[in-house]
Amino acid sequence: MKLLDPLFRAGECRAVFSDAAALQCMLDFEAALAHAEAAVGVIPSDAVDPIAAACHAELYDLDAIAHDAARAGNLAIPMVKHLTARVKDTDASAARYVHWGATSQDAIDTGFVLQLKRALSVVEADLQRLIVALARRTAEHRHTVMVGRTWMQHALPTTLGLKLAGTLDALLRHRQRLTELTPRVLALQFGGAAGTLASLGDAGMLVAERLAEQLQLTLPATPWHGQRDRVAEVAAWFGSLTGTLGKLARDVSLLMQTEIGEVAEPAGAGRGGSSTMPHKRNPVSSAVVLAAAQRVPALVGTVFSAMVQEHERGLGGWHAEWEVLPELIQLSAGALSVSAELVEGLEVHPDAMRANLDVTGGLIMAEAVTMALGEALGRLDAHKLVEEKCRQAQAEGRHLKTVLAEEPKITMHLSTAELERLLDPVNYTGVADTLIGRVLAAAEGD
Amino acid sequence: MKLLDPLFRAGECRAVFSDAAALQCMLDFEAALAHAEAAVGVIPSDAVDPIAAACHAELYDLDAIAHDAARAGNLAIPMVKHLTARVKDTDASAARYVHWGATSQDAIDTGFVLQLKRALSVVEADLQRLIVALARRTAEHRHTVMVGRTWMQHALPTTLGLKLAGTLDALLRHRQRLTELTPRVLALQFGGAAGTLASLGDAGMLVAERLAEQLQLTLPATPWHGQRDRVAEVAAWFGSLTGTLGKLARDVSLLMQTEIGEVAEPAGAGRGGSSTMPHKRNPVSSAVVLAAAQRVPALVGTVFSAMVQEHERGLGGWHAEWEVLPELIQLSAGALSVSAELVEGLEVHPDAMRANLDVTGGLIMAEAVTMALGEALGRLDAHKLVEEKCRQAQAEGRHLKTVLAEEPKITMHLSTAELERLLDPVNYTGVADTLIGRVLAAAEGD
Amino acid sequence: MKLLDPLFRAGECRAVFSDAAALQCMLDFEAALAHAEAAVGVIPSDAVDPIAAACHAELYDLDAIAHDAARAGNLAIPMVKHLTARVKDTDASAARYVHWGATSQDAIDTGFVLQLKRALSVVEADLQRLIVALARRTAEHRHTVMVGRTWMQHALPTTLGLKLAGTLDALLRHRQRLTELTPRVLALQFGGAAGTLASLGDAGMLVAERLAEQLQLTLPATPWHGQRDRVAEVAAWFGSLTGTLGKLARDVSLLMQTEIGEVAEPAGAGRGGSSTMPHKRNPVSSAVVLAAAQRVPALVGTVFSAMVQEHERGLGGWHAEWEVLPELIQLSAGALSVSAELVEGLEVHPDAMRANLDVTGGLIMAEAVTMALGEALGRLDAHKLVEEKCRQAQAEGRHLKTVLAEEPKITMHLSTAELERLLDPVNYTGVADTLIGRVLAAAEGD
Amino acid sequence: MKLLDPLFRAGECRAVFSDAAALQCMLDFEAALAHAEAAVGVIPSDAVDPIAAACHAELYDLDAIAHDAARAGNLAIPMVKHLTARVKDTDASAARYVHWGATSQDAIDTGFVLQLKRALSVVEADLQRLIVALARRTAEHRHTVMVGRTWMQHALPTTLGLKLAGTLDALLRHRQRLTELTPRVLALQFGGAAGTLASLGDAGMLVAERLAEQLQLTLPATPWHGQRDRVAEVAAWFGSLTGTLGKLARDVSLLMQTEIGEVAEPAGAGRGGSSTMPHKRNPVSSAVVLAAAQRVPALVGTVFSAMVQEHERGLGGWHAEWEVLPELIQLSAGALSVSAELVEGLEVHPDAMRANLDVTGGLIMAEAVTMALGEALGRLDAHKLVEEKCRQAQAEGRHLKTVLAEEPKITMHLSTAELERLLDPVNYTGVADTLIGRVLAAAEGD
Repeated sequence: MKLLDPLFRAGECRAVFSDAAALQCMLDFEAALAHAEAAVGVIPSDAVDPIAAACHAELYDLDAIAHDAARAGNLAIPMVKHLTARVKDTDASAARYVHWGATSQDAIDTGFVLQLKRALSVVEADLQRLIVALARRTAEHRHTVMVGRTWMQHALPTTLGLKLAGTLDALLRHRQRLTELTPRVLALQFGGAAGTLASLGDAGMLVAERLAEQLQLTLPATPWHGQRDRVAEVAAWFGSLTGTLGKLARDVSLLMQTEIGEVAEPAGAGRGGSSTMPHKRNPVSSAVVLAAAQRVPALVGTVFSAMVQEHERGLGGWHAEWEVLPELIQLSAGALSVSAELVEGLEVHPDAMRANLDVTGGLIMAEAVTMALGEALGRLDAHKLVEEKCRQAQAEGRHLKTVLAEEPKITMHLSTAELERLLDPVNYTGVADTLIGRVLAAAEGD
Repeated sequence: MKLLDPLFRAGECRAVFSDAAALQCMLDFEAALAHAEAAVGVIPSDAVDPIAAACHAELYDLDAIAHDAARAGNLAIPMVKHLTARVKDTDASAARYVHWGATSQDAIDTGFVLQLKRALSVVEADLQRLIVALARRTAEHRHTVMVGRTWMQHALPTTLGLKLAGTLDALLRHRQRLTELTPRVLALQFGGAAGTLASLGDAGMLVAERLAEQLQLTLPATPWHGQRDRVAEVAAWFGSLTGTLGKLARDVSLLMQTEIGEVAEPAGAGRGGSSTMPHKRNPVSSAVVLAAAQRVPALVGTVFSAMVQEHERGLGGWHAEWEVLPELIQLSAGALSVSAELVEGLEVHPDAMRANLDVTGGLIMAEAVTMALGEALGRLDAHKLVEEKCRQAQAEGRHLKTVLAEEPKITMHLSTAELERLLDPVNYTGVADTLIGRVLAAAEGD
Repeated sequence: MKLLDPLFRAGECRAVFSDAAALQCMLDFEAALAHAEAAVGVIPSDAVDPIAAACHAELYDLDAIAHDAARAGNLAIPMVKHLTARVKDTDASAARYVHWGATSQDAIDTGFVLQLKRALSVVEADLQRLIVALARRTAEHRHTVMVGRTWMQHALPTTLGLKLAGTLDALLRHRQRLTELTPRVLALQFGGAAGTLASLGDAGMLVAERLAEQLQLTLPATPWHGQRDRVAEVAAWFGSLTGTLGKLARDVSLLMQTEIGEVAEPAGAGRGGSSTMPHKRNPVSSAVVLAAAQRVPALVGTVFSAMVQEHERGLGGWHAEWEVLPELIQLSAGALSVSAELVEGLEVHPDAMRANLDVTGGLIMAEAVTMALGEALGRLDAHKLVEEKCRQAQAEGRHLKTVLAEEPKITMHLSTAELERLLDPVNYTGVADTLIGRVLAAAEGD
Repeated sequence: MKLLDPLFRAGECRAVFSDAAALQCMLDFEAALAHAEAAVGVIPSDAVDPIAAACHAELYDLDAIAHDAARAGNLAIPMVKHLTARVKDTDASAARYVHWGATSQDAIDTGFVLQLKRALSVVEADLQRLIVALARRTAEHRHTVMVGRTWMQHALPTTLGLKLAGTLDALLRHRQRLTELTPRVLALQFGGAAGTLASLGDAGMLVAERLAEQLQLTLPATPWHGQRDRVAEVAAWFGSLTGTLGKLARDVSLLMQTEIGEVAEPAGAGRGGSSTMPHKRNPVSSAVVLAAAQRVPALVGTVFSAMVQEHERGLGGWHAEWEVLPELIQLSAGALSVSAELVEGLEVHPDAMRANLDVTGGLIMAEAVTMALGEALGRLDAHKLVEEKCRQAQAEGRHLKTVLAEEPKITMHLSTAELERLLDPVNYTGVADTLIGRVLAAAEGD
């Protein structure tokens, strides 16, 4: 565990990408390979057990493998060397068949895909948890009116429900995308030294089919040693998810500003305290998610630019993926885990929301008046007139309602009661409720 | 047209993103809005024709709009202003209903989606063209044996067919992804000032439905002013496509190196000539595609990091998209167009491929010998023995066959004829043909 | 001019990077080359005038050059072709000496450096303008007390002067860096086809020296066709400048939020108005600067990753620079120009600042009390006690002063008058004034 | 140690950024703070020893601190908590003065700067080692003629000396930049909760001065909690260095391709062997450096985009730096260390270089002939004529010399002996030797 792991990599994905897990997944490939090859008669069946018995990460010295990898240039070479040695200790003839017909990249890429499979399963569950939490909070705040803000300025009233439904809607799309990409990216890598499985003679495809079956991975049309769109697709999905979470965290942190105070991150002993300011409660969860949203896009960019790999196995591009993919998945998964907690425990202050709606002295309701007047005066003239009245209200520090009520050009079209109604935010949330209904229905649909 | 447009932005996408086209697509939104609103009775029907008549980009002074946009902060405000003025000239009462109930972002985002729709249609056609070309060249070179290279070193024989099939396979996945994402991303943006359509009263959803129908766009569950996963998905798709094309161009440029000479970019008058070296033919197409592959990932990263947008409409993040999305689409589409031409006209030199297979004096066939020997000696011992013979062959500058034929530990297992066969690259392409068949079947399947 | 140029590319840098200017700077290289070569006797002196006379961008058809560049792979080849044709029209023998001994990259890179020279001069002036404005506003608000905010929460009082001085201090560092890098990056590119100036025989160095002198550029130790640290250095400088400006704009936009209202962007007719909400004044300048800060880092990343160029002239990496460098410089220069205007005209509301200091009912002064108590109780115990009192004040909705005054453990150490003084923000700005003095002195020092 | 650390993070920088070192550097800040504060009378002098005695990383449980950091939101809060507890164990009254007047960011940022100081010292030494190695190899190969390549095609002859001198020249610039930036970036961070040092009363500046002195860091004009240009400058320097190294590695890997074989990475037991192809020697060092060059630019981009931090201490942006800066420094330093080894032991094959010069049958010497003919025919006409002869030579598979010697338009100007001389690469390296001399002089100058 690194010092900042618990902060930035909350949740179960961290374990999926531990050194031991990485080694284990490569060993899982080797064990499955032996099984598959024995099944189709490429290697003797009695070689399988000794090989499979040695395919346990805890049997190996990670530091020694790390050290050897620096000379070999990848992890599979020392892994195979140490594995073969261990098999040889118990069964010299079985040792001949370790890694038979495979290349380093087969073990490394398939090993990563096996890690990815677990990671996607963790992330899918956390995504579902966040979806459920958001759906619940959306329903809860379906009618909680608050300020809608554009360009970081008050715009018009909206509801907290609609705000949350927007994020929920995006997450439903992410879930749909995940469903689409999963079978495409959880694909076996198996091609041998140059992608032709030449060393397996005629048995190549048979072994490949068995191996995919054994590992419950998709058998791709061709090996993809040099074709990295699958990993780019994974990276992009996590990148986009992180962006959606970052948007949520940005909003939470903005709404949690001292002067605004409409929401607060869930409290908890020791959480977000400041070392010097006893009154502070720092938005730690938002910081974690925003930091991920700051970092992940660049890592996605790296995976994309690393797609330009040479020939049948690249130099540098492939190597760049090794740490970057686990890193971006962990940061994104950490942000997801933290976001679920954040949404579940988010403190909401409807009274502050209501108070902030009044902060402009009715200016936020100007559009409502403009639209009502527009029917009589035309949109542009109504816009111009109301704009003028807004300026006057601001300059004189008076409520817009008062200023509007003094203007004959307005009162000839709108009664005091109508003005009153027009200026109440609760009456001006448009189709927010309908939109929320659409999203909640979609969320429950799955 | 900018000086480098024809080089970096070949094909029809450039026109889709011209200033005039951008304006026209926003005007198309305004015209369709008037139609939709009249249809559901929100605005008078006789307002439609005057508005629609003014919705033609050629009626406007682009420089004036550009100039005003600097003050207004976006293009829609001056667009609406100029449009309204023009409608007013012919029908003052219709002018009242221009842009009714919409916000700037509705016009800008939907305008972009309409451009995107055209761009995807251009790109889909170009992608299909490239797929067809690759399938044809793959079939043509199904049995053209060449060096497979890993880590930029000779590895084992492969075929040009399999090499091309790898790219083809990736493009088929890109095509599948495009099919999945198209309905998701070609979505109407229509939410009014804060996403609630409040100014349209009860008619909001009706207008939205009509408008989506009118523009043949998906009606999304909620407006997506602040939820930018759709544009991120588009960006990522183009980014990944560009990566695949970059890999192709990298391979072409490597194979086209003077010493290697296995392929050449299509020739043509004035194409790739050097200003000072009369014998050169620069790989201009590869340069264009590689430059795109160098630039696009960072632009994708920008779109992802810009997803962190504030509240109901962001500040800075949304603005960052305006030029970046068209830029990355054009660069990617340009690379696609150039790639299609490149593959269609690629000169292939099978004789050079054959000659390069012999460049190592048989070393490239070492694995074939190792595997054959492995059955008798075990993989590791065979590996060690052949490795030693390879070193000897290199050191003595002799052909591997000769060196192997002198070694009793080898000749006791392999006859001269067997060695001869084992050392012929044509006999060591494994399942290349089967893999090609799988990809070609998939390509034709659609 | 593109539609969004006036918004995103304000100021004079845009003209420096127009197509015509790009062509002119390459032509300036060609003219200077002829002069230099005649001066050292490499070409006949009477070839100079005909060549120089033809080196005017307005004589050429930009579209034709753009069109030819798509085939040639760069702009210099058609530029030289058209230039030679034009010289030939007036003096066929002079036409022989156009571009003598140079390569395309010499013209393109030196042309860019000449554009850069002008750009740096524009930017240096704008930077100085912003420095002067910031120094003035810093001095003006040296004692304007406001809330200091950390993690987007109230922390302690600070002054607007110190806030501005922080940005000023960073800009002084940027100015220092600019001074250091300018002679290093404004370097002649001149090496001929492979960087050896072979075609000039013994005269190569003499021509290079004259040429550098003629163009008032640094003569580098070696040509830098494949060594791109100079352009990376330029990109990084602009990237860092943009980051500093983005930080300023982020702060302005946060302080300008409706509930906070401590500053406002300068007003102006049509500036930042909303199309539907008459009361809004969008922070357009902040949006422009933040959009630049969102986009530029990725472009810097592209220039850095494009440094990996092949051999004596790269394929793809060099090409990637052509549009990216001008783009990032223009975006950054636009942000600088807009920032200068923003700072000069920034509306400041000290009353709102003062009001916001009171928004937490004294909690913001908790540290002052903690430190005072810490002398008696120890920092941690004091921290714990004050933290408890803060929670109580919050829970009971009372002012911290009242709550503290009720606690014997506090009043035994602090009198009411002391508490009063401790809770006045004006008395708790520490060394802000000294720090401001240091920065203002440094700003005036140059 | 992580599995891929020895591969990607060779050299001494890794230790500088270990978890224990990170904690130690923060503790060094705390110890120095106590010293400085006691020296100016802010805390009692007898508090210093107990505090200093507890400032040793090995006294603390890293996992516990990591765990607590997840709640606290940063490492300094648990560090101070654990430190205070430990001091309290020995001296309760000294414990009151731990971290006195400082904020978390003071400890974290200054801690990082102390790590950076060590890292820069390691890197400076490795840079010097690489400079010395390059200077030696440059001198050694001052006259080793080889093919100069542009656009990945043969261009003209150059020398290996000049090629290496280009990288050396770039590294000398990096060294110069490092000298310039070091005092600017090795700056104390000390501002207290909001950058005003308010809790230290009048003593703030005095403590700051002492503290800077104590830690041998620059005292900056103002605290830089929210002004991150210093870290951006550091990131950019490493990014640019990595780019230069990536260019070197790209060239090495290209020259090491099987067909080209002009250089080879240093051999060594187990180094770069393939798991399946006994004849291969993978360019492992190049892969490591290229992977760094692929990854670091995006990390630099993150640091730049994270500069947009809010107010007096940012949310997300600052947090993003914590892992990214150490990561990019380590990757870059690892690449530097590997590059030094690579250059020192690079195998050079001058015979292969010579052979490759002949691969085009004299075409590479076309410019020499063109320039010689240009004096008589004009550059363009000469270009056209030689181009035609090159095409003929290629088409007929004959040596250019033979074809040229048959052309009267050429032989009327050039004798056979002149043609012979013109076609010898050794006679066409221009000012390469002079350029090398300039760089070597500069390298020795320091």
